Amino acid sequence: MSERVVQHLEGMTDEIIERLRAYVACASVSADPAFAAGMASAREFLMNRFAKVGLENLQLLDGGGHPAIYGDWLHAPGKPTLLVYGHYDVQPPDPLDQWQTPPFELTRKGDRLYGRGASDNKGSSTIAIESLAAFLAVEGEFPLNLKVLFEGEEEIGAPSLPKIFDQSGDLLKADLVLSADGGRMGFWPALNVGCRGIIKLELTLETSARDLHSGRYGGTTHNALQDMARLLASLHDNEGRILVEGMLDPSILPTSAQRAEVAELGLDEDAFFATFDGMAHGDPAYTAHERLVLLPTVEINGIWGGYTGPGSKTIIPSAAHAKITARLVSGQDPDAIAQAIKRHLEAACPKGARLVVKTYGGGAPAYTLPKDNPLLIAADRILRRETGKAPVRVRHGGTLPVTSIFREKLGADTLMFGFGLPADGVHAPNESYAIESIREGLRCWPMLISEIGAIVAEEKPAAGASPRAAAGA
Amino acid sequence: MSERVVQHLEGMTDEIIERLRAYVACASVSADPAFAAGMASAREFLMNRFAKVGLENLQLLDGGGHPAIYGDWLHAPGKPTLLVYGHYDVQPPDPLDQWQTPPFELTRKGDRLYGRGASDNKGSSTIAIESLAAFLAVEGEFPLNLKVLFEGEEEIGAPSLPKIFDQSGDLLKADLVLSADGGRMGFWPALNVGCRGIIKLELTLETSARDLHSGRYGGTTHNALQDMARLLASLHDNEGRILVEGMLDPSILPTSAQRAEVAELGLDEDAFFATFDGMAHGDPAYTAHERLVLLPTVEINGIWGGYTGPGSKTIIPSAAHAKITARLVSGQDPDAIAQAIKRHLEAACPKGARLVVKTYGGGAPAYTLPKDNPLLIAADRILRRETGKAPVRVRHGGTLPVTSIFREKLGADTLMFGFGLPADGVHAPNESYAIESIREGLRCWPMLISEIGAIVAEEKPAAGASPRAAAGA
Repeated sequence: MSERVVQHLEGMTDEIIERLRAYVACASVSADPAFAAGMASAREFLMNRFAKVGLENLQLLDGGGHPAIYGDWLHAPGKPTLLVYGHYDVQPPDPLDQWQTPPFELTRKGDRLYGRGASDNKGSSTIAIESLAAFLAVEGEFPLNLKVLFEGEEEIGAPSLPKIFDQSGDLLKADLVLSADGGRMGFWPALNVGCRGIIKLELTLETSARDLHSGRYGGTTHNALQDMARLLASLHDNEGRILVEGMLDPSILPTSAQRAEVAELGLDEDAFFATFDGMAHGDPAYTAHERLVLLPTVEINGIWGGYTGPGSKTIIPSAAHAKITARLVSGQDPDAIAQAIKRHLEAACPKGARLVVKTYGGGAPAYTLPKDNPLLIAADRILRRETGKAPVRVRHGGTLPVTSIFREKLGADTLMFGFGLPADGVHAPNESYAIESIREGLRCWPMLISEIGAIVAEEKPAAGASPRAAAGA
Repeated sequence: MSERVVQHLEGMTDEIIERLRAYVACASVSADPAFAAGMASAREFLMNRFAKVGLENLQLLDGGGHPAIYGDWLHAPGKPTLLVYGHYDVQPPDPLDQWQTPPFELTRKGDRLYGRGASDNKGSSTIAIESLAAFLAVEGEFPLNLKVLFEGEEEIGAPSLPKIFDQSGDLLKADLVLSADGGRMGFWPALNVGCRGIIKLELTLETSARDLHSGRYGGTTHNALQDMARLLASLHDNEGRILVEGMLDPSILPTSAQRAEVAELGLDEDAFFATFDGMAHGDPAYTAHERLVLLPTVEINGIWGGYTGPGSKTIIPSAAHAKITARLVSGQDPDAIAQAIKRHLEAACPKGARLVVKTYGGGAPAYTLPKDNPLLIAADRILRRETGKAPVRVRHGGTLPVTSIFREKLGADTLMFGFGLPADGVHAPNESYAIESIREGLRCWPMLISEIGAIVAEEKPAAGASPRAAAGA
């Protein structure tokens, strides 16, 4: 029955892009309190859209941080419940001077749309919202119960989402989770079956009580920036192998089966590196694609310290700062790895420097979707039908902390069904989204909803499926 | 005859501090164009003061950057000419949040005055200006011809001062230079007889065309900040020895005579490091004081790159930046050392990173005052008379690029006669000046002018001494 929905959507691309423009205009940067108004306007935009779609029971769920938005359609008694997930927050637009168009004005150039969030996640979640709207408009109903949860803290590690589940666990109860977040590697047919975890650390190094004149003190004492450079350089060897003890335990190294799966995807490394004018770096015993999805990382996200203004200031800086994130693979515990990095840094800290390492923003373990997940089976079927080929299973190098939270709090697994591409440049200046990605998404999402409806119709009703009661209505 | 001048000044401390307050209130940061108004107000302040002192022929000398201020008193025909040097520009006040009092409001706490420039150089040059004013007021004349030159680019390496000399060489002609700039190590009696040179470098490292998502790319490619950390860490070994080839040539290493001179000063290292809560770092084969005045340095003054705002931004930064200065000792050519550091960085640059190293702000070689310089002899005499001890000769770890320029352009050597102390924290937040330094300076400057007058009276007139003609009046 999804054909009619897809046809309904086919002529609507321009109209949908206009709505995406209004959504991108909400400058919803969760990391920076200066963007509170943009966060509020993004919530208002979604509340209005969800109401137009025909969702009910709309409400904000406040866990003490940026509230999440909830809505539902629970008119399929006895059927399982599908939770559709997205996030309305975006990464900071910095560095502003590198944007060629205003970050919060969606700008079309050729076959792409430019703006912060154009891809991650406003573009991909627009596909989800429009698909739901068209489905209900054309079919009058969904083939199973449906809930939406759009959070506002994905880009900062979803710190208050667990609390939202603790407060509203019954309301959010679901059997399956379909995520509008998560990208694809650029090849069809492929299905995301897992992602890496993450931890975040902030380092402060202090070597003196105040900045010192580099002439009157230079040569006698520690320079916080020099010490920070040594400290950060100690994390990797020359080829980019991680040197943190306990981070490359043999138990987490890729199996030959995993490596074969990745090899099957046949990433064109030259083309991959050409998209960002970069070069391969990392353990040469593995391919770039293996390093991307099967191995952990330690990346420096930011460093600051000393004088960074125009001209010179001849000082020995007293303090240096750095932000670090590490991506984790299956079998790595976020807390244990954070401790391992902390131990490494403390051991490598030059004597005479005072180091503080703090974790922040919440960690998340890596995630793997079980092979028998109904959404995975449904997605496999529609991609075979669409492309005539068996989709390959791919893991994702990024992190969707919510997948772990959904498994822990709902006991439900998550299919990532986002349509971002590597060329989108998410998190960077000039983020963009291919208009073709919108078109593809608007075909696949209705088909997937239809297909999961068919699958659940074949199966026994989910245990305790009483959606009205679950919704607390 | 200086006793009357000293007496005249003794009751004026409060009044002089009020004038210093007005001078500090001129936010004259030469490095940052945003402070242009503060630079102009500092020039206006000085023009008014020099006019009050009784100097003539006042004018701005414009070399294309921040103009210098000139004035003279040329009523000692046949006598040599003394050029008094100071600078009206100050270091940037960053980091602003570390100031306990507003940087441009001179604030008295206990026996110290706090504010940017309170010591360097507005405090020490206030001593010079007030001494000249009192001398002329009490004595009605100077014992030799006198010129003042206060520049506005000392803190940025005096880039246009050579041009000012090229344009106004005759006007500036002088036999002796007395500098109100330069500090002392905190012990009397001691005389500054030299300083280190300086070069300034800025590094830009680029590893990709744009910032990359640390999940979608992490593990595959270069991180500009990781590469920058490796690059900067390569400049020194663990103990702080410089690893740049050509920077520690045996010909520039301290002689045993130089080391003995420094040892004679008996710096209390524990007390020295306690003033800034720091620890010794550097080649342990030398004492901290030796490293400070007899050895070169390479110091990182600032690093920036990636995301440095609140929360996290999970990127692999594409670019990293650093500012470096190196202090030079006798026998080191600024251009040659800049090239040596550049070669080292280029050789150490990780393959896959694109490095640009540029020198800026002008370099200056180290400087040594000849032992028979009349100002040095005069200062030696007054210090012996005041303290009953033979003053020791000390070298200064900082850089006064003007000393090299004066030697090159005027053929004249410079006695540094500033009264700053290590505890002043110049260039750092909460810079301060001891009120006792003002009192000591106001005794020593008039005595020195008097003494140099006595010395030149004993000597034959300087060659070609025709001050009016020299002034172009």
